[in-house]
Amino acid sequence: MRVLVFGGFDYERSRLYVVSSYLEVLLSLNAKVIIFPLSELAKGMIEEYINECECILFCGGEDVHPRFYKKEPERGIRKINLLRDEIEIEAMRLSYEQNKRVLAICRGIQVMNVAFGGTLKQDIDKEGYISHFQDMDGRFGYHTVEINGRVLKAIFKREEILVNSFHHQVIETVAQGFLVEATAKDGVIEAISRHDRDFFVGVQWHPELMWKQDVLQFELFKELVKG
Amino acid sequence: MRVLVFGGFDYERSRLYVVSSYLEVLLSLNAKVIIFPLSELAKGMIEEYINECECILFCGGEDVHPRFYKKEPERGIRKINLLRDEIEIEAMRLSYEQNKRVLAICRGIQVMNVAFGGTLKQDIDKEGYISHFQDMDGRFGYHTVEINGRVLKAIFKREEILVNSFHHQVIETVAQGFLVEATAKDGVIEAISRHDRDFFVGVQWHPELMWKQDVLQFELFKELVKG
Amino acid sequence: MRVLVFGGFDYERSRLYVVSSYLEVLLSLNAKVIIFPLSELAKGMIEEYINECECILFCGGEDVHPRFYKKEPERGIRKINLLRDEIEIEAMRLSYEQNKRVLAICRGIQVMNVAFGGTLKQDIDKEGYISHFQDMDGRFGYHTVEINGRVLKAIFKREEILVNSFHHQVIETVAQGFLVEATAKDGVIEAISRHDRDFFVGVQWHPELMWKQDVLQFELFKELVKG
Amino acid sequence: MRVLVFGGFDYERSRLYVVSSYLEVLLSLNAKVIIFPLSELAKGMIEEYINECECILFCGGEDVHPRFYKKEPERGIRKINLLRDEIEIEAMRLSYEQNKRVLAICRGIQVMNVAFGGTLKQDIDKEGYISHFQDMDGRFGYHTVEINGRVLKAIFKREEILVNSFHHQVIETVAQGFLVEATAKDGVIEAISRHDRDFFVGVQWHPELMWKQDVLQFELFKELVKG
Amino acid sequence: MRVLVFGGFDYERSRLYVVSSYLEVLLSLNAKVIIFPLSELAKGMIEEYINECECILFCGGEDVHPRFYKKEPERGIRKINLLRDEIEIEAMRLSYEQNKRVLAICRGIQVMNVAFGGTLKQDIDKEGYISHFQDMDGRFGYHTVEINGRVLKAIFKREEILVNSFHHQVIETVAQGFLVEATAKDGVIEAISRHDRDFFVGVQWHPELMWKQDVLQFELFKELVKG
Amino acid sequence: MRVLVFGGFDYERSRLYVVSSYLEVLLSLNAKVIIFPLSELAKGMIEEYINECECILFCGGEDVHPRFYKKEPERGIRKINLLRDEIEIEAMRLSYEQNKRVLAICRGIQVMNVAFGGTLKQDIDKEGYISHFQDMDGRFGYHTVEINGRVLKAIFKREEILVNSFHHQVIETVAQGFLVEATAKDGVIEAISRHDRDFFVGVQWHPELMWKQDVLQFELFKELVKG
Amino acid sequence: MRVLVFGGFDYERSRLYVVSSYLEVLLSLNAKVIIFPLSELAKGMIEEYINECECILFCGGEDVHPRFYKKEPERGIRKINLLRDEIEIEAMRLSYEQNKRVLAICRGIQVMNVAFGGTLKQDIDKEGYISHFQDMDGRFGYHTVEINGRVLKAIFKREEILVNSFHHQVIETVAQGFLVEATAKDGVIEAISRHDRDFFVGVQWHPELMWKQDVLQFELFKELVKG
Amino acid sequence: MRVLVFGGFDYERSRLYVVSSYLEVLLSLNAKVIIFPLSELAKGMIEEYINECECILFCGGEDVHPRFYKKEPERGIRKINLLRDEIEIEAMRLSYEQNKRVLAICRGIQVMNVAFGGTLKQDIDKEGYISHFQDMDGRFGYHTVEINGRVLKAIFKREEILVNSFHHQVIETVAQGFLVEATAKDGVIEAISRHDRDFFVGVQWHPELMWKQDVLQFELFKELVKG
Repeated sequence: MRVLVFGGFDYERSRLYVVSSYLEVLLSLNAKVIIFPLSELAKGMIEEYINECECILFCGGEDVHPRFYKKEPERGIRKINLLRDEIEIEAMRLSYEQNKRVLAICRGIQVMNVAFGGTLKQDIDKEGYISHFQDMDGRFGYHTVEINGRVLKAIFKREEILVNSFHHQVIETVAQGFLVEATAKDGVIEAISRHDRDFFVGVQWHPELMWKQDVLQFELFKELVKG
Repeated sequence: MRVLVFGGFDYERSRLYVVSSYLEVLLSLNAKVIIFPLSELAKGMIEEYINECECILFCGGEDVHPRFYKKEPERGIRKINLLRDEIEIEAMRLSYEQNKRVLAICRGIQVMNVAFGGTLKQDIDKEGYISHFQDMDGRFGYHTVEINGRVLKAIFKREEILVNSFHHQVIETVAQGFLVEATAKDGVIEAISRHDRDFFVGVQWHPELMWKQDVLQFELFKELVKG
Repeated sequence: MRVLVFGGFDYERSRLYVVSSYLEVLLSLNAKVIIFPLSELAKGMIEEYINECECILFCGGEDVHPRFYKKEPERGIRKINLLRDEIEIEAMRLSYEQNKRVLAICRGIQVMNVAFGGTLKQDIDKEGYISHFQDMDGRFGYHTVEINGRVLKAIFKREEILVNSFHHQVIETVAQGFLVEATAKDGVIEAISRHDRDFFVGVQWHPELMWKQDVLQFELFKELVKG
Repeated sequence: MRVLVFGGFDYERSRLYVVSSYLEVLLSLNAKVIIFPLSELAKGMIEEYINECECILFCGGEDVHPRFYKKEPERGIRKINLLRDEIEIEAMRLSYEQNKRVLAICRGIQVMNVAFGGTLKQDIDKEGYISHFQDMDGRFGYHTVEINGRVLKAIFKREEILVNSFHHQVIETVAQGFLVEATAKDGVIEAISRHDRDFFVGVQWHPELMWKQDVLQFELFKELVKG
Repeated sequence: MRVLVFGGFDYERSRLYVVSSYLEVLLSLNAKVIIFPLSELAKGMIEEYINECECILFCGGEDVHPRFYKKEPERGIRKINLLRDEIEIEAMRLSYEQNKRVLAICRGIQVMNVAFGGTLKQDIDKEGYISHFQDMDGRFGYHTVEINGRVLKAIFKREEILVNSFHHQVIETVAQGFLVEATAKDGVIEAISRHDRDFFVGVQWHPELMWKQDVLQFELFKELVKG
Repeated sequence: MRVLVFGGFDYERSRLYVVSSYLEVLLSLNAKVIIFPLSELAKGMIEEYINECECILFCGGEDVHPRFYKKEPERGIRKINLLRDEIEIEAMRLSYEQNKRVLAICRGIQVMNVAFGGTLKQDIDKEGYISHFQDMDGRFGYHTVEINGRVLKAIFKREEILVNSFHHQVIETVAQGFLVEATAKDGVIEAISRHDRDFFVGVQWHPELMWKQDVLQFELFKELVKG
Repeated sequence: MRVLVFGGFDYERSRLYVVSSYLEVLLSLNAKVIIFPLSELAKGMIEEYINECECILFCGGEDVHPRFYKKEPERGIRKINLLRDEIEIEAMRLSYEQNKRVLAICRGIQVMNVAFGGTLKQDIDKEGYISHFQDMDGRFGYHTVEINGRVLKAIFKREEILVNSFHHQVIETVAQGFLVEATAKDGVIEAISRHDRDFFVGVQWHPELMWKQDVLQFELFKELVKG
Repeated sequence: MRVLVFGGFDYERSRLYVVSSYLEVLLSLNAKVIIFPLSELAKGMIEEYINECECILFCGGEDVHPRFYKKEPERGIRKINLLRDEIEIEAMRLSYEQNKRVLAICRGIQVMNVAFGGTLKQDIDKEGYISHFQDMDGRFGYHTVEINGRVLKAIFKREEILVNSFHHQVIETVAQGFLVEATAKDGVIEAISRHDRDFFVGVQWHPELMWKQDVLQFELFKELVKG
């Protein structure tokens, strides 16, 4: 299986990067990893890259600019990478159209929601009461998540799991066509999916940091590259 | 044309990375960029990646461990990434066997030389007299290089050019089968090539930083993706 | 055209400075740039410098001391440079008297408003809801601005534009004789002008960072040096 | 009198700058200061700026690239700003042709020497024995300088003076047409001048830091703006 | 007497550590110090270590994960070390079962309370009004504590004492079987004990920093190693 | 006149220190400066030092511990130096008893108030609305102060003056026997004095930073050393 | 088996510490780890701690003070901890007398040599030519070591192995009664042992960093806890 | 006894300072400490301060400017404080004339030697072989010193002692009238004295850091304040 990975860009060092834990879980599953060359010059090549992969992985990263869901940026919003927003939103839609298997992690779930018309809360510090940014080893679960969707129930076979947490934004209104798959105890939406596709899932936590200790999270990646 | 790129790994941040200037010059030439997922787990996949690309780009980076040319590490040597050494040396040999078009930059020329039996001087500060690490904008040429090889003469059509300079090691004995293409005024070997292949060239400078200002350096990349 | 530029002063390094983007847009328009030598010793020379330039550019910088609009400094106010305040307020008034073409950017619009009797809100973090300090590449627009003034409508020919945003203070009451030219969605005044002069405009955003990507912002500078 | 000042450029902050002590001594002498807008875009305007000033001041700064005196950069050379080199060398020659009164300080004396065919020692740490970079308050003299030229003898009326010292390069061979005006005890050339012009002087020390404590150094600036 | 010490772990440096003031007070009392080797691999050895010591000291450190008292982590919680939580909670229970003499300091009192079913306030900054983190020499008392428990009254023989203060969490509901021994003026619980054991005491302050200046605090350690 | 100065202690560097501006204003007035050697070992020598000086200067510094006015430390309080508190409170009382001429600056006015039974607000950020910590050159006045006491009116001969501001605590209830001499527009007490002594004055601002630009503040020091 | 570990002391943080890799290898071998409480107050307890352990591990750390081998400290020597020197030298001798199984790593081998009358080269940068401080992942071998002693040959069953390298001092003359077990290619002594004891071995490299990748180094620890 | 102390000046923080260990040893001896207010404005008051003290202490600090012994500053010299040089050299001579008891420590011994015509080696790193700047707790002796002078023999009653070491310059030729009292094993002069005065001694080490552990060094201070 070929997996197209959308990673990050470090403007200070002028470097494309992919955090290695994403690569390692895919490589352990014998996937062939293709990294999208995030660049203004590659905007016209998104479809070409998607065409030759069966699976797509969207990784964590910056906040999404609210213009993509028709809002102004509000106080409390953080770092934004407009180019990455544009490329990933287009890639998300193309992945859907071509029925690719998609896993969208952290920023990924936010891009997924925005790409199909959902909105985000711009600053989680003004919402809920649970801490969503742990100062604790990311390999271990931090807060509880209730599994309330069909797709994740089939994968995790649990009512509740513990997940890690490192995010700043969160879904406000779920995009039409998506179902909530998991929620935190303070109501924060932790996972969504689209049931009209084979595997089109977004999660707010970071399974790529947990899979070595927590076999449930490894199952998520197995689902991604299945078929 | 598909170009396989061997980039770096940032151990402090646990990130695979590629400096964006390498990507930009390739994308401007409409090349399709494939980034090798540098990882212990990808050691068995080198050939698979090489097979599906016509061109290979080796980028700058750490010093090469002297064990690969049968020497002990000497005082003055700097940072080493053993995994990257092993992967790139194997990739270099496979690229040769399969007659890929190869451009090897900075650390790349050192890997090229070592992969075929050449040796390196472990610390350039003990050699020559010219400054080989500029504290000057890398887009501009810093020291002179005499073009004395057939391949670069055909590309540059000059006897001498100005090149930038950011390196710590340098070729000592040229690997058998390679010819010197360029030298600095203090005798440092600045480029080599292999004439029994279509395009198998290493340069000690960084053309990917200069190509926007200096059309000669752009020619080098055009040659890489020609065909 | 000669443009007099009022730049900043770095007390830590004891240096007069001008951010280069201001210079570059003016030089691309073939303006002759004259930089005012901000210094206690140059207070008596303001008129002499203004006399020999047709256009005046006021740049971004520190907060304005509220004494200049008869208020005490309130909690939340930031860095202040009294000398720069005094010099620029005098220069603003002289520029008006001599009907110079004036563009006042960010801190500049605040100085413009204060110089003619307007007041400022001392800490924007206590006002509105939009984020007015972006953690995003300044070359790109960040939030929306409604163009509601005659002067900017003539230049931009739009109802709304996107502008970047890097400021800490904002106009409270507009100085008599000035008209609001643009406002953000949260009511923050983003541009003012004086219609009894040929070109006397202040904007709260930074067009000097945007002009290469956004032709509208380049128009603003064209207006400044027109004639 | 109008004095054109060639200052520095801070690449990290993208700012043109002039250290304030240069401005203050000129402003105390009632000179009108014009700062050259160092920028690629201003290369064609050098003559225009020189034309309208009677005096020219070249300030301290980076090392000069040895290409301007036909050498390769040697180990030990430091930061270089090629654009500033090009602009100041042209400005130096134009100032000479138009018989402007010129004072060239620290980097300035090096540019002066190179502009007329002289050469530099690239790294003073390999020369002489005196410390030429003081860790001491720059307002005070640090090492002795013998005044052996006609111009400086007329100004200083001394055989020896104490000067401060903050430099990394130094004159090797004096450009034709120039005379040595002062030397340190280790033979380092500390001042040169050209006798076929009214006032065309370079000094290796920083009189702009000393003039308030040391009336001799103030005389130097008085000479610059005399006439 | 043998005292088993549960110290900390510095993840940045990958080091087990014990702050020396804990060791020094024990060594001055001629106790034999045994330091528990905090490690995943030592989880099975807790009982073995406890078995051969008469006294147990729990030291200061990170926040306790709320999962151990059936809560989700709330905004305001800080650094957590899950492994240390697990090991110390088990060690606390075993110490109780075996009737060891126990002193639990700062984080120690929190672990003590949680191990037996009590709960914590996750962020003291949202509670009370007294400053519980002093920017003052830790050897000296900072705020007042009322001694209202039998055990501490017997040791201190005072109604009120001054204690230092460096903590971020605090007891909410006291675990069943424990009695409050001391409280701050804002109601924060500063000490608890269990009367069905010989010496089973937790204190929220740091007596190990004060004992050289304050003989009362030395008494606390004397009690620990008595017998 | 001999002036005893109570300076600060830098615990990080283990150094007694006195900020030089305090010394310079006194030395310009030809006072003989005696610096109290702040140390545990000098607690018994306070009277001896006071005895041989006619004037006493208390300088700025840390917050005062609220135990000296019978309060607990509250959230928002900052750095405290207990030894300095004890020494200066005793010195303040002795200075009063011996009718020394006393000027108490910033922390000094707080010590003065506490030494005679007054209280402080522990964190000014919770009080008033004016900014009492300027990010502006301390040589210049920042906010307005109304002069409403007899002593300062006699010295300043003004109804209002501008003062600088760098403090974190402020007087709550004025100690018996003291009169308010000045207040800020938000009601913060800015100066007090005791009329039963020749000169016993505390000010909340820093006249030692302003005296070179502002002759009024120099008058304050003249008063201190008068006689 | 009980293993007594002599770790380090961090003076900046006032903490006893043991690098966790030492603990982990011992715990994997089911050893019971006892950490010596390095402190002035524990000097009299060394024998007591040694008595109850069968094995002793000396860890890496600072340079040894040359007074212990009757030399003055020479230029190039680095950080020294006199207390640790005294305690470990005494512990080394006691361990020998009581025929404990001893492994001494890096600083440990230096302490071992000095404790029995050997001497050290104070600054390895003045000796040999090989780099003995790698800027490379410590889990992997860096330079070659020839195994020339009976003890290590029995363990490693190799003529040469690759070892990591992080040291600053090195053995000069081997203490009487010790035999060289391994040497680097530049003659640096890399291991010694004492054949009149069951297991009394010092190595200059860090096997505790390598044992997970390199089974040979794990053998060394197995030997330590054998019996 | 009154002891006048010449301390340092921190230009970065604009603070006069005295390291507290100097004060503590004097205060333990019941000396009354008078600190000289190092300032340009106090240059005329040196004699007045000396007049009223029986003993004078010169503390450690910066290098001495070589102009005071008729040399140019050489490469390798470090930080210089000209004002402190001038004041202390004058104070040293006055102390001699008035037969004060004088102890001069580290920089103090250098000032002592220079004040009477001796010279210094400007950079000890070019001299001897012993390390004269310890990276070791300053309370403990570091290298050996041979006591070869009458004065120190009478105080220490030893042939050799261990001293700490933190200096950068060292005596070259001893000033006329002075005798060498101690030398390091590499010939560095470690103490001098003048026998025509009651107590006029300079030492290159720092007895003020050692006196609590080393009674010999306490004797030195007892001698200073004797009488």
